[in-house]
Amino acid sequence: MNYHFASRIEHTPRSFIREILKVTEEPGVISFAGGLPNPGLFPVNGILDAARDVLKEDGPRALQYATTEGYRPLREYIARFYQERHQISLSPDNILITNGSQQCLDLVGKVLVNSGDTVAIERPGYLGAIQAFSLYEPSFEGITLAGDGPDPAAVERVIRDYAPVMFYGVPNFQNPSGVTYSARARKELAGIMEGTGTLYVEDDAYGELRFMGEPVPPVYSYMPDQVILTGSFSKIIAPGLRMGWMTAPGPVFSALVTAKQATDLHSNYLTQRIIHRFLIDNDVSRHIDTIRDAYRRQRDVMVKTIEETFPEEVTFTRPEGGMFLWASLPERLRAMDLFNRAIREQVAFVPGDPFYTDGGGTNSMRLNFSNSDEGMIVEGITRLSRLIEAMMKGK
Amino acid sequence: MNYHFASRIEHTPRSFIREILKVTEEPGVISFAGGLPNPGLFPVNGILDAARDVLKEDGPRALQYATTEGYRPLREYIARFYQERHQISLSPDNILITNGSQQCLDLVGKVLVNSGDTVAIERPGYLGAIQAFSLYEPSFEGITLAGDGPDPAAVERVIRDYAPVMFYGVPNFQNPSGVTYSARARKELAGIMEGTGTLYVEDDAYGELRFMGEPVPPVYSYMPDQVILTGSFSKIIAPGLRMGWMTAPGPVFSALVTAKQATDLHSNYLTQRIIHRFLIDNDVSRHIDTIRDAYRRQRDVMVKTIEETFPEEVTFTRPEGGMFLWASLPERLRAMDLFNRAIREQVAFVPGDPFYTDGGGTNSMRLNFSNSDEGMIVEGITRLSRLIEAMMKGK
Repeated sequence: MNYHFASRIEHTPRSFIREILKVTEEPGVISFAGGLPNPGLFPVNGILDAARDVLKEDGPRALQYATTEGYRPLREYIARFYQERHQISLSPDNILITNGSQQCLDLVGKVLVNSGDTVAIERPGYLGAIQAFSLYEPSFEGITLAGDGPDPAAVERVIRDYAPVMFYGVPNFQNPSGVTYSARARKELAGIMEGTGTLYVEDDAYGELRFMGEPVPPVYSYMPDQVILTGSFSKIIAPGLRMGWMTAPGPVFSALVTAKQATDLHSNYLTQRIIHRFLIDNDVSRHIDTIRDAYRRQRDVMVKTIEETFPEEVTFTRPEGGMFLWASLPERLRAMDLFNRAIREQVAFVPGDPFYTDGGGTNSMRLNFSNSDEGMIVEGITRLSRLIEAMMKGK
Repeated sequence: MNYHFASRIEHTPRSFIREILKVTEEPGVISFAGGLPNPGLFPVNGILDAARDVLKEDGPRALQYATTEGYRPLREYIARFYQERHQISLSPDNILITNGSQQCLDLVGKVLVNSGDTVAIERPGYLGAIQAFSLYEPSFEGITLAGDGPDPAAVERVIRDYAPVMFYGVPNFQNPSGVTYSARARKELAGIMEGTGTLYVEDDAYGELRFMGEPVPPVYSYMPDQVILTGSFSKIIAPGLRMGWMTAPGPVFSALVTAKQATDLHSNYLTQRIIHRFLIDNDVSRHIDTIRDAYRRQRDVMVKTIEETFPEEVTFTRPEGGMFLWASLPERLRAMDLFNRAIREQVAFVPGDPFYTDGGGTNSMRLNFSNSDEGMIVEGITRLSRLIEAMMKGK
């Protein structure tokens, strides 16, 4: 039979990262390609204790259908968390529990984007967001990410010329670039956006993974009525649990709940109960400190090895947190060529192209440091440096 | 600020069932409204054992990101299950694990439906499907469900006149009507549909809950290249785990995987591992028999009480499985009026209207028997019968 598809699916790219999984996951390959947390840091015993307690004490209810918005005490915990960490007052009523923060992006696309609407996105931008929004057939406008935030002139121009329904960004330790918006850049961004019809979608999946420098207030705190803020347990507990959350201004929140209900009724309820139990029974701050310390060490080794071995012409970011850094080869070189050579030497990373919605980025690359031990980082980066040198010599 | 929404969300109804939740969940209310399994039958200890074993033996991996399609051994288990139960040969490669079977409907809508396309659906039809598909702005065509399947003349007419992208149905113990397609009706349906461009979406969420009569082969078995078949662990294990699956012809499957990846990367991986472990470590057939026995007893009490107490003019279905039966009041009465009276007497059900995409059904009602014990069923049905009698007398 001839199958007919909706046009939206024909416009949706498959993830490059996924497509190369077969190569990057072969044993012996040093992979800086994925965005995986270090599984050695997952709180396996804490999760097990929480699961046992929830099932023993309230099993039948924890396994039943539940409300779309999510488990109330978990939403209250998240509200307290913002109060304590950022002095931001959120109502638990306005927090929706989702299947990881990736689902927040699907719901945002569902609720905001008509086919042909403009979506503004950082360039380079998060691949998963490009995919998720593509399903709703927007026209993307890229906003260049400078050293400390999105280019203000580009924000102004894109909002004036295209009136985007949203500007999507990752202000902390951005995926893929590792860039963090400064407080000044956040304030300036809010100043430009306020009063326009464009919502800022603030993806804060990495916010807790700051291992140096000073915390900066969320963009949300500068214009709460104009921001959809999303968060994730993937990086601070474990991603296999697929659990995240979002908050949004009242009318938008209400539409998001309708969309969530139509999409999958509610998020895994047993897992919500387990995560809540884990959070209240454990010293979560200490657990997050352990993750931060490990990632800082891995980041330091990667930065240092790049400094020592990469040719001077290669520039790169020095992230203050998160899981990625971003390197740019001399303009004439293509990271995809380097990728093909590197795979033969059993090293993987993600070339920059897929992170751009408008071409460009062909000389750039994303390097993940959270999922490789220090020895592998030194070895992998050293191999890459030899390959880059050869390419620069035209070999 | 003025918020602008995508038109799809403005066309998506909130669930009536959800809207009345506040009334139906008050203590003291006898509710035949929800679609909840009996939580006393959830295998709490089996889930706990499985969780402990998975976390102790393979915790870090079970908590990590995973592939979009799902945990391979679970997909293999599902393939074996179809082989053993229905002599249907499915490839595990062609099975996608989803967040309950509700998510299958969202993915099907995403992949198949352009705005304005026709979607054929049973009348009455499953409310969650009407909601899920509404997000993709189809035009619905209802196909009347007769005593043993969809009206063949209506199927022929709708396919000829509207060339729908799909016909969505629940052939076993349909929600809301309790109707099961006979083998003859399935064969006839396949005969009409084969060679047309319309896919049949076969929602088999209740298939294992047959407590009387003979099993009937899935519609899938009559035209495997033209059916998207979905299933769920919600009714045979527990719904709070939000875990289901789907299989589809190759090119459709590939599009569904792209859509799933963009939507939420993959389903909760720890839960997939726990469910798989539970399935291989327990006598699942015996567990399902226990559920069936309980629901059959509850169904029998409801049918018997209706027979004994409802006025003769009220007709109703006698389901061979599942969780619902469907009653029709005399045409001049409105089930919504009965609902308003019943709530005052602390009895709840779902009036028929929301299950129709084209009006109609105002005199009908859905009654759930899986989540009330036998005493409550007798008491609730008896109260309803008094109210119906009063309405028939014009009181």
